[in-house]
Amino acid sequence: MEDELQHVLWMAISVAPSHGNTQPTRILVAHTPESRAALISSLSEGNRNWAPAAPLLFAIAAAPSHDTTPQDFGGTTREVWAMHAGIAIGNLMAQATALGLIAHPMAGFDEPGVRAVFGAPDDVRILAVVAAGYPGDPASLPEDLARKETAPQDRLALEHLVAFDRWSDVNAVSARELRRRNR
Amino acid sequence: MEDELQHVLWMAISVAPSHGNTQPTRILVAHTPESRAALISSLSEGNRNWAPAAPLLFAIAAAPSHDTTPQDFGGTTREVWAMHAGIAIGNLMAQATALGLIAHPMAGFDEPGVRAVFGAPDDVRILAVVAAGYPGDPASLPEDLARKETAPQDRLALEHLVAFDRWSDVNAVSARELRRRNR
Repeated sequence: MEDELQHVLWMAISVAPSHGNTQPTRILVAHTPESRAALISSLSEGNRNWAPAAPLLFAIAAAPSHDTTPQDFGGTTREVWAMHAGIAIGNLMAQATALGLIAHPMAGFDEPGVRAVFGAPDDVRILAVVAAGYPGDPASLPEDLARKETAPQDRLALEHLVAFDRWSDVNAVSARELRRRNR
Repeated sequence: MEDELQHVLWMAISVAPSHGNTQPTRILVAHTPESRAALISSLSEGNRNWAPAAPLLFAIAAAPSHDTTPQDFGGTTREVWAMHAGIAIGNLMAQATALGLIAHPMAGFDEPGVRAVFGAPDDVRILAVVAAGYPGDPASLPEDLARKETAPQDRLALEHLVAFDRWSDVNAVSARELRRRNR
């Protein structure tokens, strides 16, 4: 993928907001063939079936020690680095889509393995591995992946996701349970 | 804010991807004046100075028990609900911007307090409180907030955020440390 396009993707991650502007998110790019091969080896088997076709592979990492820990009124604190990395991933996906690209984040990978690929220390957390590139033809995929790629997007009805003023049982039920009931 | 616009914001959160399509993210909307007042009381003092002017206030929550826990090759597992909620927040911000709105997530709040506003159980985590609305005139803000609002966006140089093939000391240094050095 062209360097200019990659640069726009990194900028989308860079401008993502963080509480206190701590910017704990890092981007680990597998640039050389050796790095790419090592990163692919760190993916789950399912992801190894399709991700190697993407021209751009990188990991989204976070340095929790860089981040703030917002405090509740009672003095307990909360970690926000994973949310911060997530916001950056959301920004990245929107920017990729606007460029006619796809950025597909994966959670199926070996975290110690990905750290080892880049020589990142143990206190750096790996949130996602992202495959990015131009959309391809689903017909080029194996049958099971092609079916997945062309299936309609399945999402819960909004009533399960949104609570107006009051949390209720409708919000408490999980997507897994709802899909089991509808099967 | 018009119900149709709000609906588009909830849809942006709803379509955000999650590993295994678990959709652990929930939206807790302070709709009545009582809920709004209670939610505002749960904000940090700094946020109470500006957020009440927003026509729409809501919390982004997550139900960790709904979510998957991806497994490393050695059998350890990772929690991904906070990243999932973050991706949804990133989607929300992009959608709000596309609509000419602003969606401003805050981490400065009291988590038990926000849960209490909505009667959400203890195992529901609150990731952010979001103030959304049309952009206002910075001149209407108190002087310190107006300065903050109109200041240029300050972000680290990309070399600190992006590692090509190899993690380095340039990636390890925190935004806080870099800004201290440049002061």
